[in-house]
Amino acid sequence: MSKIPLAIGIDFGGTSVKTGVVRGCEIIDQAPPIATQEFDSPDDLIRSMVRAVEDLRSRHSDLSCVGIGMPGFVDFEKGLVLNLTNVRGWENVELKKQLEEQIKLPVFAENDANCMAFAEWKLGAGRGYEHLVCVSLGTGVGGGVISHGQMIRGARFAAGEIGQTSIDYQGRRGHYGNLGALEDYIGNKEIARDALSAYRSAGIFKDEEDCTPAALSEAARHGDEIAIGCWNSLGRMLATSVMNACWLLNPEAIVIGGGVARAGELIFNPLREHLLRQLSGPFKEQLAILPAEFGHEAGTIGAAAIALEKISE
Amino acid sequence: MSKIPLAIGIDFGGTSVKTGVVRGCEIIDQAPPIATQEFDSPDDLIRSMVRAVEDLRSRHSDLSCVGIGMPGFVDFEKGLVLNLTNVRGWENVELKKQLEEQIKLPVFAENDANCMAFAEWKLGAGRGYEHLVCVSLGTGVGGGVISHGQMIRGARFAAGEIGQTSIDYQGRRGHYGNLGALEDYIGNKEIARDALSAYRSAGIFKDEEDCTPAALSEAARHGDEIAIGCWNSLGRMLATSVMNACWLLNPEAIVIGGGVARAGELIFNPLREHLLRQLSGPFKEQLAILPAEFGHEAGTIGAAAIALEKISE
Repeated sequence: MSKIPLAIGIDFGGTSVKTGVVRGCEIIDQAPPIATQEFDSPDDLIRSMVRAVEDLRSRHSDLSCVGIGMPGFVDFEKGLVLNLTNVRGWENVELKKQLEEQIKLPVFAENDANCMAFAEWKLGAGRGYEHLVCVSLGTGVGGGVISHGQMIRGARFAAGEIGQTSIDYQGRRGHYGNLGALEDYIGNKEIARDALSAYRSAGIFKDEEDCTPAALSEAARHGDEIAIGCWNSLGRMLATSVMNACWLLNPEAIVIGGGVARAGELIFNPLREHLLRQLSGPFKEQLAILPAEFGHEAGTIGAAAIALEKISE
Repeated sequence: MSKIPLAIGIDFGGTSVKTGVVRGCEIIDQAPPIATQEFDSPDDLIRSMVRAVEDLRSRHSDLSCVGIGMPGFVDFEKGLVLNLTNVRGWENVELKKQLEEQIKLPVFAENDANCMAFAEWKLGAGRGYEHLVCVSLGTGVGGGVISHGQMIRGARFAAGEIGQTSIDYQGRRGHYGNLGALEDYIGNKEIARDALSAYRSAGIFKDEEDCTPAALSEAARHGDEIAIGCWNSLGRMLATSVMNACWLLNPEAIVIGGGVARAGELIFNPLREHLLRQLSGPFKEQLAILPAEFGHEAGTIGAAAIALEKISE
């Protein structure tokens, strides 16, 4: 039998909470997903998470810890959920404390984009790098920063929010009052909205479902000029925020994941072109621009990996 | 007699090279400045720097090391100057090696904005903070990043270049091909150029010397609406790059120095306003926005402080 330690990874999403047993970079068992919005209070949802963990523990006796990726701000040291972007009622929830009392295993809670970044850094596309910027492209745009071989969490554990950085100081007003936030241009919904309007300007009527990233990707592969134009524009805007992270942090590698990154070269080509054209020598020589290796499992695997690293410190 | 160790700090500027004896946060003795552009080759200038150091050593027997701040890219570990922005001929110069051979003291070479950041972090406005972003406003806009109690140098020692980060993905094309670089809006020359054009639009004729940051500052204090407008606009643009650094790094403190920062509240007020309005809770609560404590001596003091820290490791 393998001696690779087992941990529970929990990927807490706005739609569902997924709990799995993780060995290295594999999820070897899973509990049924929990529908996040069906719970009125954190307490009830936490009880449901405890049952999912107990369920898995009944089949795996050698679990050493639990890691949870949360969609919002988490005080990593205390395991305190400060607030969640799209789940009501989660403010100042002592998640680590409550779970540890009920599960009797060490529990660690971390921001979900940091979990994704950690998975890519330790087990995925970013293996071996000491300086890494990870970006996750989906409904929201998140990220994680590794510098000098350390995850940069910042003064209040909130670092890595590349999706909130501005690409235009006079741009669209975002959720936090910030102008020109990257997420407000290349989040899923914004991609669809801007593509619809590009088609409309060309006199072409489309439904919103024709303009999802997946549909735009398909259209572009079939030579649709407007879809190709959308991807070029998205790559260019993404390049600006990534470039800013490069000037600030001088990373060796950029890892791009999340659903939108499945467009592959449609977004990676313009990203690479605009990024490298706007950086000087020490910033671009040997800079690796890589697709993430993990897909929707990154959160679960990363959460478990962070917990395992933490208990071995 | 004080037991505070003495070190040589050298501030290598595009105009002059200033060499001083540093004790703590004080320059207690100085050699005559060397005119940078009078030397055709790095070798000659290095010989002149050696003479300046020997001159100071003849009066201070207990010097333990030499730190040099360079206006460009430096491989800090090797003490290798990769290239300088405004001084020709300085490419791949083994500065540390050459100086150590001639001076017989440990020598450390670092980027000048990092020296300024280090001085503010260890001895100035940023004392006691573990997460800090420093910005230096002058002809160029430079910076330095401290995260988790460590100077972030990046993969190739080039990190901290906040002046090259973009505030507008469709903005002005900068020195490195980057679009909308902060420096191309709030560098000394750009401030003057934009102010001239603001006056011209209002039908007011001004000379370039009426539009230096110092003159604009004076005019604004006397109620000149156009000058006040210029400062508001500068503060707003600076806020965008600082905000981006906050979302990425979640610092506890921002330190702003350099000549342009002497405008004081004229730039700090709009900076503070636009910055805090565009950040969410964990990014802005308890965020300190501070003027630098050191003026033009920051480079010399910081270079010496870095060298002293390095020899005590």
